[in-house]
Amino acid sequence: LNLCRNPFTKLQEQLIITVLGASGDLAKKLVYPALWDAYRFDSLPEDTRILGYARSKLSHEDLVERFKPQLKVNGDDDEKKRDSFLESLDYIHGQYDEAKSFKKLNEHIESMSQAKTVNRMFYIALPPSVYKDVTEQLSNHCQAKSGFTRVVVEKPFGKDLESYQDLNAHMSNLFAEDQIYRIDHYLGKEMVQNLLALRFANRVFEPSWNRHHVACVMLTMKEDFGTQGRGGYFDEFGIIRDVMQNHLLQMLTLCAMEKPVSTGPDDIRDEKTKVLRCIKPLKIEDTVLGQFVGNPEGESEESRKGYTDEEDVPNDSNTPTFATAVFHIENDRWEGVPFIIRCGKALNEKKAELRVQFRSVPADIFGNSTRNELVLRVQPDEAIYLKVLVKEPGASSEVAQTDLDLSYKCRFGEQRIPSAYERLIVSAIKGNSANFVRSDELEQAWRIFTPILHDIDAGKVKPKTYKFGSRGPSEADDLVKKHNFSYAAYEWSQCHDQCK
Amino acid sequence: LNLCRNPFTKLQEQLIITVLGASGDLAKKLVYPALWDAYRFDSLPEDTRILGYARSKLSHEDLVERFKPQLKVNGDDDEKKRDSFLESLDYIHGQYDEAKSFKKLNEHIESMSQAKTVNRMFYIALPPSVYKDVTEQLSNHCQAKSGFTRVVVEKPFGKDLESYQDLNAHMSNLFAEDQIYRIDHYLGKEMVQNLLALRFANRVFEPSWNRHHVACVMLTMKEDFGTQGRGGYFDEFGIIRDVMQNHLLQMLTLCAMEKPVSTGPDDIRDEKTKVLRCIKPLKIEDTVLGQFVGNPEGESEESRKGYTDEEDVPNDSNTPTFATAVFHIENDRWEGVPFIIRCGKALNEKKAELRVQFRSVPADIFGNSTRNELVLRVQPDEAIYLKVLVKEPGASSEVAQTDLDLSYKCRFGEQRIPSAYERLIVSAIKGNSANFVRSDELEQAWRIFTPILHDIDAGKVKPKTYKFGSRGPSEADDLVKKHNFSYAAYEWSQCHDQCK
Amino acid sequence: LNLCRNPFTKLQEQLIITVLGASGDLAKKLVYPALWDAYRFDSLPEDTRILGYARSKLSHEDLVERFKPQLKVNGDDDEKKRDSFLESLDYIHGQYDEAKSFKKLNEHIESMSQAKTVNRMFYIALPPSVYKDVTEQLSNHCQAKSGFTRVVVEKPFGKDLESYQDLNAHMSNLFAEDQIYRIDHYLGKEMVQNLLALRFANRVFEPSWNRHHVACVMLTMKEDFGTQGRGGYFDEFGIIRDVMQNHLLQMLTLCAMEKPVSTGPDDIRDEKTKVLRCIKPLKIEDTVLGQFVGNPEGESEESRKGYTDEEDVPNDSNTPTFATAVFHIENDRWEGVPFIIRCGKALNEKKAELRVQFRSVPADIFGNSTRNELVLRVQPDEAIYLKVLVKEPGASSEVAQTDLDLSYKCRFGEQRIPSAYERLIVSAIKGNSANFVRSDELEQAWRIFTPILHDIDAGKVKPKTYKFGSRGPSEADDLVKKHNFSYAAYEWSQCHDQCK
Amino acid sequence: LNLCRNPFTKLQEQLIITVLGASGDLAKKLVYPALWDAYRFDSLPEDTRILGYARSKLSHEDLVERFKPQLKVNGDDDEKKRDSFLESLDYIHGQYDEAKSFKKLNEHIESMSQAKTVNRMFYIALPPSVYKDVTEQLSNHCQAKSGFTRVVVEKPFGKDLESYQDLNAHMSNLFAEDQIYRIDHYLGKEMVQNLLALRFANRVFEPSWNRHHVACVMLTMKEDFGTQGRGGYFDEFGIIRDVMQNHLLQMLTLCAMEKPVSTGPDDIRDEKTKVLRCIKPLKIEDTVLGQFVGNPEGESEESRKGYTDEEDVPNDSNTPTFATAVFHIENDRWEGVPFIIRCGKALNEKKAELRVQFRSVPADIFGNSTRNELVLRVQPDEAIYLKVLVKEPGASSEVAQTDLDLSYKCRFGEQRIPSAYERLIVSAIKGNSANFVRSDELEQAWRIFTPILHDIDAGKVKPKTYKFGSRGPSEADDLVKKHNFSYAAYEWSQCHDQCK
Repeated sequence: LNLCRNPFTKLQEQLIITVLGASGDLAKKLVYPALWDAYRFDSLPEDTRILGYARSKLSHEDLVERFKPQLKVNGDDDEKKRDSFLESLDYIHGQYDEAKSFKKLNEHIESMSQAKTVNRMFYIALPPSVYKDVTEQLSNHCQAKSGFTRVVVEKPFGKDLESYQDLNAHMSNLFAEDQIYRIDHYLGKEMVQNLLALRFANRVFEPSWNRHHVACVMLTMKEDFGTQGRGGYFDEFGIIRDVMQNHLLQMLTLCAMEKPVSTGPDDIRDEKTKVLRCIKPLKIEDTVLGQFVGNPEGESEESRKGYTDEEDVPNDSNTPTFATAVFHIENDRWEGVPFIIRCGKALNEKKAELRVQFRSVPADIFGNSTRNELVLRVQPDEAIYLKVLVKEPGASSEVAQTDLDLSYKCRFGEQRIPSAYERLIVSAIKGNSANFVRSDELEQAWRIFTPILHDIDAGKVKPKTYKFGSRGPSEADDLVKKHNFSYAAYEWSQCHDQCK
Repeated sequence: LNLCRNPFTKLQEQLIITVLGASGDLAKKLVYPALWDAYRFDSLPEDTRILGYARSKLSHEDLVERFKPQLKVNGDDDEKKRDSFLESLDYIHGQYDEAKSFKKLNEHIESMSQAKTVNRMFYIALPPSVYKDVTEQLSNHCQAKSGFTRVVVEKPFGKDLESYQDLNAHMSNLFAEDQIYRIDHYLGKEMVQNLLALRFANRVFEPSWNRHHVACVMLTMKEDFGTQGRGGYFDEFGIIRDVMQNHLLQMLTLCAMEKPVSTGPDDIRDEKTKVLRCIKPLKIEDTVLGQFVGNPEGESEESRKGYTDEEDVPNDSNTPTFATAVFHIENDRWEGVPFIIRCGKALNEKKAELRVQFRSVPADIFGNSTRNELVLRVQPDEAIYLKVLVKEPGASSEVAQTDLDLSYKCRFGEQRIPSAYERLIVSAIKGNSANFVRSDELEQAWRIFTPILHDIDAGKVKPKTYKFGSRGPSEADDLVKKHNFSYAAYEWSQCHDQCK
Repeated sequence: LNLCRNPFTKLQEQLIITVLGASGDLAKKLVYPALWDAYRFDSLPEDTRILGYARSKLSHEDLVERFKPQLKVNGDDDEKKRDSFLESLDYIHGQYDEAKSFKKLNEHIESMSQAKTVNRMFYIALPPSVYKDVTEQLSNHCQAKSGFTRVVVEKPFGKDLESYQDLNAHMSNLFAEDQIYRIDHYLGKEMVQNLLALRFANRVFEPSWNRHHVACVMLTMKEDFGTQGRGGYFDEFGIIRDVMQNHLLQMLTLCAMEKPVSTGPDDIRDEKTKVLRCIKPLKIEDTVLGQFVGNPEGESEESRKGYTDEEDVPNDSNTPTFATAVFHIENDRWEGVPFIIRCGKALNEKKAELRVQFRSVPADIFGNSTRNELVLRVQPDEAIYLKVLVKEPGASSEVAQTDLDLSYKCRFGEQRIPSAYERLIVSAIKGNSANFVRSDELEQAWRIFTPILHDIDAGKVKPKTYKFGSRGPSEADDLVKKHNFSYAAYEWSQCHDQCK
Repeated sequence: LNLCRNPFTKLQEQLIITVLGASGDLAKKLVYPALWDAYRFDSLPEDTRILGYARSKLSHEDLVERFKPQLKVNGDDDEKKRDSFLESLDYIHGQYDEAKSFKKLNEHIESMSQAKTVNRMFYIALPPSVYKDVTEQLSNHCQAKSGFTRVVVEKPFGKDLESYQDLNAHMSNLFAEDQIYRIDHYLGKEMVQNLLALRFANRVFEPSWNRHHVACVMLTMKEDFGTQGRGGYFDEFGIIRDVMQNHLLQMLTLCAMEKPVSTGPDDIRDEKTKVLRCIKPLKIEDTVLGQFVGNPEGESEESRKGYTDEEDVPNDSNTPTFATAVFHIENDRWEGVPFIIRCGKALNEKKAELRVQFRSVPADIFGNSTRNELVLRVQPDEAIYLKVLVKEPGASSEVAQTDLDLSYKCRFGEQRIPSAYERLIVSAIKGNSANFVRSDELEQAWRIFTPILHDIDAGKVKPKTYKFGSRGPSEADDLVKKHNFSYAAYEWSQCHDQCK
């Protein structure tokens, strides 16, 4: 996890970052702002150039107009810095499937190259339909002569095991595994990156972190909005492919993995892959799927509409917008401990968190069986808290639930938390692949989900309906209870609220 | 620990509390104020009468004048309540060694008795010189005919094993063990009472609470003032008899004991006694003793004076005002884990706390060996916090020390924390002896300390000098380091400070 | 367990053992032979005298004739020794409820007394009907003036909680707890005495000896014969009172107890009592009771008869001759681990053993889920063996079940194993009460069994029938399986069989 | 470890085994006898042909004469079988560095090929000097067209890290890793193959198998003879390269490794490699080296000669014939537990064993601190035994040391134990590489030993002398004691001796 072990310090070298799909939404909203933040807080190598590439013909003015509103500033110095950042942006247009265009791209990069060693990073911000073409062209025409060539790619990496294997076979013919940086932006989040530190830099949690003491682990990612106009795109994938098979499964492996030999990327990913190998394919009886319908009493117009009411979503869509699934890790540490993932859209709240619930105290002498929990709140309001019981303060001698707390806003108020994209781009530049997904991890992830995905795609499983703004289908709560999660009324609140 | 399991609810009964030594300092400063608070917050049985007894002839006006300033009120209602409390106080005078006086006392109590069942509690707020006489008289003349007779006694309980055994033989001839309530007021403190709840109502700490994971346990009680005019009295006892052999050793047993079969008083004290039985007598080489000298640069006049400068303290006094001692509990849970007690007067700060320091992470992969600690702050500012390492927030990937925190002031700001005396008196009334010291515990405690106390008394061990306002003799820090306590620069601060 | 810690070495003292009921069966078959063996192997104090007391008038010749055939000898020296042992036996007759007789007994003992200190041990080998009278008379008239007075008593100690408490109240008025030696002869057996050594002198078993690793514990005591003419006596008690409430429950506590502070008798019995306190009263649904019927195909005449066919047993007797019961110890170590006791008469084999069955290996990679077991065979053929899996020897790479073995006959062939009675009498003489049952243990034991015993006595529960020579009712096997005991075909054999 | 998971069952296929170096000693003494045993006990695929290859021109009669005396038979049937085995042996001669010869070899193999699929296994029984040539030729000219091509190679694999890496680079250019079967014949031994079964198929050992409970692990390989005429060869390598860096280190990793995800070869070797990565290079202060000198009082002539007295060994040889070394595995399971390897020639006995010594019982109440040990005796007389303490049988209540035992000769007397070579050859045929050494394991092994080997080679470290027939240098015993190994007088004996 030490991103800095092999820092990119050879500043005499040059780095040319090419964003493929520079005219698209991802580039505008995430990639360029992350590059800007990296630049603004001095995390880019000194001599870095950024080149956009897309099919559209865009002038430099178009670029500036497009990106400027997305780049946050804080004060005059920042404004000046932004102007020079925007000024420096380069762009050429070309096709995605044509050797000629990529030869031109290569020439353009060469024309920008001034150092002896020129490293190249290609950020592929493009839809899956052009992946294969683009990567083939890059491999054939745009590899660095001196320095590294790296490609950063984003999901979707296939739609099931077969399509992934096909894609991977294609990629591995073109690039070595260590040239490919597969982004799962959850791996760039502060609290997710914190997981290994919390587990392995502390002595106090380790003795409890196993099936003898953990009752279950719950990973939650709830959104309080629907598909927001992207229903057509979403309908092709569904919630499992959208967030469960990647973001949440990644968190699960970090929570469950054995201690790696070192913080080196492959040591970490070896252990993550071992966890996945111990998980059997997900079964229907271990899942509850849901699809939201409008809530007639909803306050907003959005909430009164259901998923299939959205334009581009077929009326008879079988696509789940909600899923709860229970995973069993068959190894020494976790046998018998359910790992529960819950995720969905159009729910009652917006949050992502990891909750390790400990077993009840055996032979309890206090008559209060509320369980301990260690909670990592990923968003919003990053926090770690440990729910414990203490003697009720005062004259009482009953025990009562409270928590030991670490709220980031309260504790580290002034500390800037970089965005996931900024972190990951900087990591890729540094060659630290620990927070990128390795090919065998993805293969295992697809192995686990492919059977149920095929069943869903084939209409063999039907999602339950649930109202916009609800907790999801009640069957999901039943499933969770059945798997040894015990709800206890408790509302964590950030300390700064209490201290006002 | 459930003080309320057998509450004193038979309100048709009557309770008569007799405070022996009612004209003394202890009665004025602690006993009567505690009785008032118990009354004020409705913790006394409905029909309770309080009777003072002492040698002085005091009128009711004298009583009111004496006690009124000590009884805190908050608002008009309280004032009225206090007036009626004061009004109700009764008093008679008599000798401490004279049957006649105690017969008179008994008659007086009988004259106050109106219910069928009249319970009697005798609070002996008297110096040791009259213990034996008073308890003999009480036993002979003042036992209740119906209802219980209980005597509440305070340290000192002897000066060493022999004198304690002598005293105990005397007492056990007069009263059954379950009639005797030996006060150690530390057992009435919120955080001390919390210890068993924290340990046994939570699952998460238990797996780490043993020699495999704990490096050492440190109990600290530091005062930033000297003997404040009580030097003459103090010189007879010294710091070990004053706080280590009782308050701190009691905390140690609560921290170290096995889980009791129930929260019943004897189950708890059985386990506490077992801990003490596993401790060998304290050796000189496991201790550092100190005696403070004046600090010429001290700001206050007090701080420029040394211990022997105080009136009533002999110039060549060998009495320690500071002690650090290392205890070894030879049982399965704790073999090899040093329990370190540090206490002293005229030090650099005022605090009492329990610190469980966990071992370093084996085969650390993060290169930061700072240890986890669970800290219970007893005073001031009650708190529990767990020192942990997290990824340094932000772009860094180093780990850094912080804590999971539970500050009572911040969390339970409005909740009244009763005083130790109030709690214990109410417990004694309820017949809950869990927080009182049993005779076999005391015997064991004296067994542990008697050899070194005799060596000190005989001048075979000399305390090192240390300056008023310092950390104590530097040899104490060496001893602590030698026994596997690892200091790490870290300043815990209450959240309310950060949130201002 | 160190029976020798306080050896009886003051040989200048004299010991007079009085056997009350000297003319009875117990005296003939067990007490006198045990005394003889103790004498023969030099375990009695040098100056020991043995005095018989009973109602019958017996001459010295009668005594010799009665006891001689019971006293085993080995060679001529032994024969001579036996003659002098027999020669030395003394006897007087008297009533059991008459002061006069006991005054006479006292005078007789005094007439035998020659040393300054004369210790007295009274072995009460009498039926319960005269217990109270005899103990009262002994207390009033026969206590030693110098030296100790001890009484050794045998079950039955009451028939339920109430009758036990009544008996105990009687006894505790007459003798101090440390004067009373309650025999449970199972506590004198080699392998039972071995239990604490095996558990607490070895490091290797301790980490597995708890609910995380033990699936269940099974205690078995099977007899392959029926009531053998003692049916009338047995019918009053039944199998639970006969062996489960005492012998087998005692073994259970030794297997389950926490490590004591020392091997001192009260430290051991404190921990045993704590185990019993954590066991709830036995419920009907946790038991299967049985009563044997004749097996028409049985080879012996005995086996063709059922329990109620025996003279003195009522035809409609509801008394169980077989019981399987499941106990739950609600403490940290054992919560969730069933302790199963099986016992019965007229079964398919004769053996007594303790079987600790470990849980299955989690996430087994060898595909053989046979469980480890640690077995202590109490009788016949004392042994300890640990069932383990090894690679099948030879070319195969499968794993197969075998055991690590310690057969006493094979290993310690020449070593004499004293009888339980001999051991216990010698212990009582030495004042080592560790292997005698303390009053609070018995109280707890009766608490556990009294409700179900009352239900049986009242005919609310009916035993199932089972054939003489069978495994008992099949419902018992179902109960055992339900409580996580897993049978695996395996026949342990003593190494000496293999090595022939 | 399930060698049979992927059995070679496609008997329609053909297998041609070519032994390169067929005229040499290794072939004669180990390879052909192992092939014969595999054939004799039906472990070879049905259609297997064996072809010898060497420089010498040998007739079929030469072959028969050469091999027949080495091939054991038991009865007439065996004799007939052997005759047909010998009859079937084929042989051609050729050079080791000449394309022409290998083309001829290839043609010969082709001429033997009759099935559609013909698998080829090349057993390279040749000195290191011709490795590179032979493997290059094989790769270029002798790979199978259909079916697999596998090469079986034997140590030495280089002399240090650099030479190994050179050799490995050469090999990995010629063959894929899964074509190369590096033999360490210790991995073919019954008890070594048993290690993983014992550890991972049993529940009872796992909880103790870690630094909390293990005091140290000792691996021993002692020979009671010297270099027996092979001193010249031995002098080039020394004891560390001869047995420690391979055989004993392999056993160490099997003893120390984490549980693999499956018994698949790469899962096992992944975990073995992880252990090696956690071991720092061996330091001089953690070793004692020795070289034997003649014992003037020795009975045999051999024993009166020292190492340097042997012909071919230089008088000033610095080569160790004995080494004790302490290894530290820096991971969660083993930090702080010394792994001690002892090996040497010309010592007092001949045995190889693995000894896991458990820590002393904490807070021992029996006053006997003898430690538990689990011993795997590899040779002679395979056995597993667990040293435990029990109550001394009989009247004593002391505890005494004995063991739970599993002697293979006693228990599985009739069961044939195949030789290591036979097992490994059969495994290689089946494609089970679990018991062969993977390239990364070897790299790690050399990393650990290279610095000290270079120091020895450079004469910077001098071996201590020790007498032929002694325990080795006394400094070795000191080192062992210093690293927490505690000797206890105890002589294990096979049960069959006791039962005679």
